[in-house]
This record gives sequence, C-alpha cells and structure tokens, in this order.
Amino acid sequence: MRIEVMEGILDENGRIADRVNARLQENGVFCVNIMGAPGAGKTTSLIRILENLTTRRPAVIEGDIESDIDTQTLRRLGVQTLQINTGGACHLDAPLIEKAVSDLSLSDNSVLFIENIGNLVCPAEFMIGEHVKMLIATVAEGSDKPYKYPLAFEKAAGILVNKVDLIPHLDFDETFFMAGIRALNRDVPVFKVSGRTGEGFREVAAWIESKAAQTNASH
Amino acid sequence: MRIEVMEGILDENGRIADRVNARLQENGVFCVNIMGAPGAGKTTSLIRILENLTTRRPAVIEGDIESDIDTQTLRRLGVQTLQINTGGACHLDAPLIEKAVSDLSLSDNSVLFIENIGNLVCPAEFMIGEHVKMLIATVAEGSDKPYKYPLAFEKAAGILVNKVDLIPHLDFDETFFMAGIRALNRDVPVFKVSGRTGEGFREVAAWIESKAAQTNASH
Repeated sequence: MRIEVMEGILDENGRIADRVNARLQENGVFCVNIMGAPGAGKTTSLIRILENLTTRRPAVIEGDIESDIDTQTLRRLGVQTLQINTGGACHLDAPLIEKAVSDLSLSDNSVLFIENIGNLVCPAEFMIGEHVKMLIATVAEGSDKPYKYPLAFEKAAGILVNKVDLIPHLDFDETFFMAGIRALNRDVPVFKVSGRTGEGFREVAAWIESKAAQTNASH
Repeated sequence: MRIEVMEGILDENGRIADRVNARLQENGVFCVNIMGAPGAGKTTSLIRILENLTTRRPAVIEGDIESDIDTQTLRRLGVQTLQINTGGACHLDAPLIEKAVSDLSLSDNSVLFIENIGNLVCPAEFMIGEHVKMLIATVAEGSDKPYKYPLAFEKAAGILVNKVDLIPHLDFDETFFMAGIRALNRDVPVFKVSGRTGEGFREVAAWIESKAAQTNASH
C-alpha cells in the first residue's frame, strides 16, 4: 500500500514538473535544481556562481524546512529570491515550485536556481521542473559519499566538490571518491571549488551558461 | 489525503517502536539512535565511543541506503554489527529495527547503537525503539544548522559537535550555533569532539554509560 501511494505521488509530481519545465522553457528560462547535504555550502556556492555569471540574469527559489537566513542574504545582494518553507518536508516538490514560479517575475534569458532542502536522499527522487540537477558535495563529508548516496550522484548533470581549501587538513581519498562517481555517472563534469576562496566558480558559471544556451536554443 | 496516510504510518511506527523499546528494556539493553547529516562522521564517532566504553558491551545496527562499507569496518574491529540497506528510503523505521533486533544476540548490559541514514530531516520524525537520540553535527557544516534543521536538534538527548580540529580553518560561529541549540533544547549536553584526534569521546562514552545505568535501573 505504501508503495502504491508513493508511486501515485511520484507520477502526479512528474506531470506537474513537466508542466513547470515547459512553461520555463517557453519563457527562455533555464532552471537548475541545487542539491546537497546540510552544510555542503549550497548558498555560498550559489553566491559565487552569481558573481561569475556573464550573460544571464538570476532568480532564486530558496527551499528550507524553517528559517529564511539564506533568502535574507541573497536579497541583500539584490537577487530576486523567493522563500519556500516546507515546515518539515524533506524535499521540494513540483506543486510547490509551480506556485513559486507564478509568483516570480522571470524574464527571457533568466537562470532560475532552486536551492533544495539540505538532504542527499529525497531531493534526488523528485523532479521539480528543472533542466539540470547540480550536486554540491564536499571534501569534508568524506570520500565514500557516492557509494552511500548513489542516486544524487547518478542524477546530477554537474557535480561541485566544495571546500577544497580544507584538503590539507583532511584524509580525503580523491581517487576513491572519483571512482565512485564514475561508476554511477561516467561523463558528468566535476568541478573542484572553494566557497571560501572563490576558486573554481568561474568554470561552474561558464558551464551553466553554456548548458542554458544549448537548452533554450534547442526548443 | 497525503497527511492522513503519513499520520497512519507514524502511528503504526510508534506502536512498533514502543514494542521494540519494551523488549530491549526487559533485556537490560540500552539503545542509542545516532542521527546526523551525510559525512558528519557517525561511524568514526561510533568507533571512538566504543573504544571508550568501560562497562557495557556494544552491538550495532548500521543503516544505509546502499553499501556496507561501515559494517565491514565495524566487523573488522570485532563488533557485532548488522547491516540494514533501505534501498532508497531516507530513514530507518521501527518495523526494520524490530526484525533486526530479533536477528542480533543481545545480552543483558549491552548498548545497541543504531546508526541511522545520513539525513538531518527524516530520521528525527521516526521513533525506532531507542532510549535516546544522539545527534552528530560538525563545525564544517556551519553554525546555522540548528536554525535550519530544528527537529533533530530539539529531539536529541545529547549532541556531538564533531571535527573541532578543523575550527582554525573555518568561519564557525560557536556563539550563534549554541544559541540556536539552546533555543530548541535548553539543557541538552553538547560535546565537542574530533573523530580524527579522538578528543572528547571519553566524556561521550561516560554520558552514554551513565544514561544506560539510570534507564535500565529505573524499570
């Protein structure tokens, strides 16, 4: 019974996600679903990416269980940001995003970043209208994460490995980590970044803008 | 409808959790539910705690979505360990633990540690038969975590702040972090630890053994 209920929820969610994606696509908006564990540095990375965007205007939907700490930070930087508080739910879903998208003013050539709930498990299961999923992992989380949380690594169109400035102080096994990623996702681009120093984000922003140009042109 | 289904699942889970807890209690077994985000160092902390136990024999149930990396590590150390793979589910539940407990050989005066799925959200909602929840947070995750993931911090009977050896390399605001914890959980003991250096785990093990003695004596 629980499985049937879950499948019903996923089907309905998928239909709404397709509708959200079609609407964004019609309006020339590229949408990135940002996933990562709590404390992976999703908001810090997002700010670094925004600093490096050259052709696209950003808008942000911030997903949190509670609080609007990150939304306040982004608004202080002048970024159009809409807060969703799930009040307990461990991931965003398509109905939440459909409503949020109607409340945002999105122009042609925007990039809509959706920061999902900090969770390496559930967000990977739910489409929310995005063109690509971007996963933020960190060297502080340890090198076994692709083996333990495979779905998020498998579904990511791009993976950021954040906090590389901490490598000298950790026992991070990059070879083991990368082997885990490659077993799940052969060709995914992996970007080494540091939210603290800003290292690596120019390449991430360029990758997003290039994906956006391909995606919005192809329809 | 989804809410009713969810409430039904939680009620049924709670009944089974009570049954598991009663059975453990009858057998003089103290049970600790270990929660934390992916990469918080749950297994490393557990190993450090086991090294410091003086009066209790440990057994472990390892929860993972996939893989048995941590179970292999614990078995190599001679610890009775049982693996549960949830195959996607983002938390352990009481039916899974009820089955696992029947498969373990638990003697009077054991401590059963259950390492939950790496997730700061869902595990906090599901009782699994434990006497206490122990939360492992880290300084690398940032100081805003109690504000963003309040339920886990609120429900914890003890909180470990791991990876304190990294503090010199981070912008961790301990005052803000502790204020967030105290707003949710006024009297919870907070232990600063480092899985890497072993610092602080003698105190954690002593706290667990003291809790175990009180709990098993009082019934």
